[in-house]
Amino acid sequence: MRIIDATRGRPHALQLALCDEMLTAQLENYFAENGMDVRNYGGGDGIPEMKRIFAELLRVDMNEVIVGGNSSLNMMFDCVATFVLERKWGANSKFICPSPGYDRHFSICEYFGIEMITVPMTPDGPDMDAVEELVRDPQVAGMFCVPVFSNPQGYVYSDETIARLAKMHAAHPAFRIIWDDAYTIHHFSGERPQPLNILDECRKNDNESRPILFTSFSKISVAGASVSCAAAAGESFKILQKRIAAQTIGPDKINQLRHARYFKNKNGIEAHMKKHAEILRPKFELVINAFEKNFAATNATFTKPLGGYFISVEIPGNAKHVCQLCKDSGVIITEAGATFPYGIDPADSNLRFAPTFLSSEELEKALEVFCLSVQKAVK
Amino acid sequence: MRIIDATRGRPHALQLALCDEMLTAQLENYFAENGMDVRNYGGGDGIPEMKRIFAELLRVDMNEVIVGGNSSLNMMFDCVATFVLERKWGANSKFICPSPGYDRHFSICEYFGIEMITVPMTPDGPDMDAVEELVRDPQVAGMFCVPVFSNPQGYVYSDETIARLAKMHAAHPAFRIIWDDAYTIHHFSGERPQPLNILDECRKNDNESRPILFTSFSKISVAGASVSCAAAAGESFKILQKRIAAQTIGPDKINQLRHARYFKNKNGIEAHMKKHAEILRPKFELVINAFEKNFAATNATFTKPLGGYFISVEIPGNAKHVCQLCKDSGVIITEAGATFPYGIDPADSNLRFAPTFLSSEELEKALEVFCLSVQKAVK
Repeated sequence: MRIIDATRGRPHALQLALCDEMLTAQLENYFAENGMDVRNYGGGDGIPEMKRIFAELLRVDMNEVIVGGNSSLNMMFDCVATFVLERKWGANSKFICPSPGYDRHFSICEYFGIEMITVPMTPDGPDMDAVEELVRDPQVAGMFCVPVFSNPQGYVYSDETIARLAKMHAAHPAFRIIWDDAYTIHHFSGERPQPLNILDECRKNDNESRPILFTSFSKISVAGASVSCAAAAGESFKILQKRIAAQTIGPDKINQLRHARYFKNKNGIEAHMKKHAEILRPKFELVINAFEKNFAATNATFTKPLGGYFISVEIPGNAKHVCQLCKDSGVIITEAGATFPYGIDPADSNLRFAPTFLSSEELEKALEVFCLSVQKAVK
Repeated sequence: MRIIDATRGRPHALQLALCDEMLTAQLENYFAENGMDVRNYGGGDGIPEMKRIFAELLRVDMNEVIVGGNSSLNMMFDCVATFVLERKWGANSKFICPSPGYDRHFSICEYFGIEMITVPMTPDGPDMDAVEELVRDPQVAGMFCVPVFSNPQGYVYSDETIARLAKMHAAHPAFRIIWDDAYTIHHFSGERPQPLNILDECRKNDNESRPILFTSFSKISVAGASVSCAAAAGESFKILQKRIAAQTIGPDKINQLRHARYFKNKNGIEAHMKKHAEILRPKFELVINAFEKNFAATNATFTKPLGGYFISVEIPGNAKHVCQLCKDSGVIITEAGATFPYGIDPADSNLRFAPTFLSSEELEKALEVFCLSVQKAVK
């Protein structure tokens, strides 16, 4: 039996090939705009042109940006490590985890022994009544957020949600929001969502150190060799800078220069993202059409995201069952429960469908198996 | 006044240019030898061909190698962080720091609040009587070693030193040696030093988890965008692997593939290092000739390394003075004291001279100023 792997949000080879020109371009010279030879040591927080691009993308000041290596997950892990090591977050810290959410965020918490508290997601973002209640606990040290095209539902936080996150009183003196803006410009239909600026809002409320923003080019250029960044202000920026000064003599600045010269600015990125959209949109349409047709007679519901990498399915009490039925027919989807802290979905309901990595032919086969499994399970 | 900066072990632009061919080479395809598309996610511990190259270089098994990003300093920092976070090393841990040594090792200890204990260096490596005495203290959790062309003296550990490091009984249950083999193949005169294999020796003595080896291509390919690795066995390997699994979806594998295809194996590296040697040897000869001529009537002594990036000068009671005199004349050398923990050289004696980054003309000017400063200081 040929196995079809629809577990992860990996770009398809056709998407990766969109960037071959960047990878093979001859750099005219190796000097960043500040005169630094990018082949040599130095520049621990990145080259200026890359800072400027990230600043424009995240709507922050370029002096608030730290450009890193190829993985924003790595930067988030290191950020959490830093707050633990610096004893900003004590031994009994807890994190708010809007769920369903991103399993690798949960893995970071698990690694550090941070207790995870699940908060439900709504189409406007996390249930803010629950969040506001939880942050009154002085052990609640932080929160993971994917504000745009949330993983796996593809929801976009509303302005009200963001305003409340910025304004709420947190009892923990070093409460932080890990703002994983991974899909910030990853719309494949309609306009780019431009929710309220979290850093501006927090600043207005005297909470400038609260959000630490992350994003990367992993789903803009190439997943395995992109450029990532963190952005922060106030004490948060200082804490990250201090660690970086001890941790490294500098990130890969050649790759940064390659990216900066190829993409140039937000306009360059937007033009490139249209090419991704042309590959992604038909896949998502295929999935949504199949779900609409096949779930009509079931209690399964699903999201219809306009960007991001996933479609989320709810099938109360039957997620594990569907997962197993798919597996039996050679289609592997993200493990049921993986979208919840500790891998435990209390309602055994959520499934994450990842269509991007599959060819059209594989996707059609996967959808056939998946829809049939849902129908079988709810019988 | 034109300032000449001889502070750091940076390669000269001519050395960086030796690798332009690698940076501009068109990769025929993007598949590692295990079939993995290096542009996509995955392969958290590196591609097999790069593991094999590092394994050959460090004389370990390729299954003991974890390939990382561009900076071995970053990997060392993360390694120490891991042992602290995993509570292998408690709050009152101490580290043995052979000195003079590498200031960035000391910065890592300082960042984590690890108390540093200075042990003198000898031409055969650290004073092993002192080391064997110190490891009887159950709070001594580890030790930094640069076994080949030590920074700054350019000494190579003797086989006896390595055998004793492998054999000695350490009271701390998780005692580790951070084996920074940064200059493993960086000889510019004579044959490559091949000291005893630390991992083999430790294994023979039932201490296989003791050494954690690090090296990188930073002074083989390009300092700012190379590939680094860690190598370890037993529990140490497991601890590092566990962190990496939570920390990242994978390092930059395109850069790994570029390196692997360009250098191929140890022979390829050796051929390339000959080109570096041709640039470095005359610079070191210039320095040593100048020191021999100008220090004769002083009490200053110096090392004559056959590889690495530094020459070490001893001028008891006058290091700070010389440093200041140089500065006054526009030549900045590594701060006096920087080669000792906490920046304190008790004898105010050691100075590190870094000739590599300078052009011949700059180097001659720097040597003139340095030698004159030494003569002035000892008057």
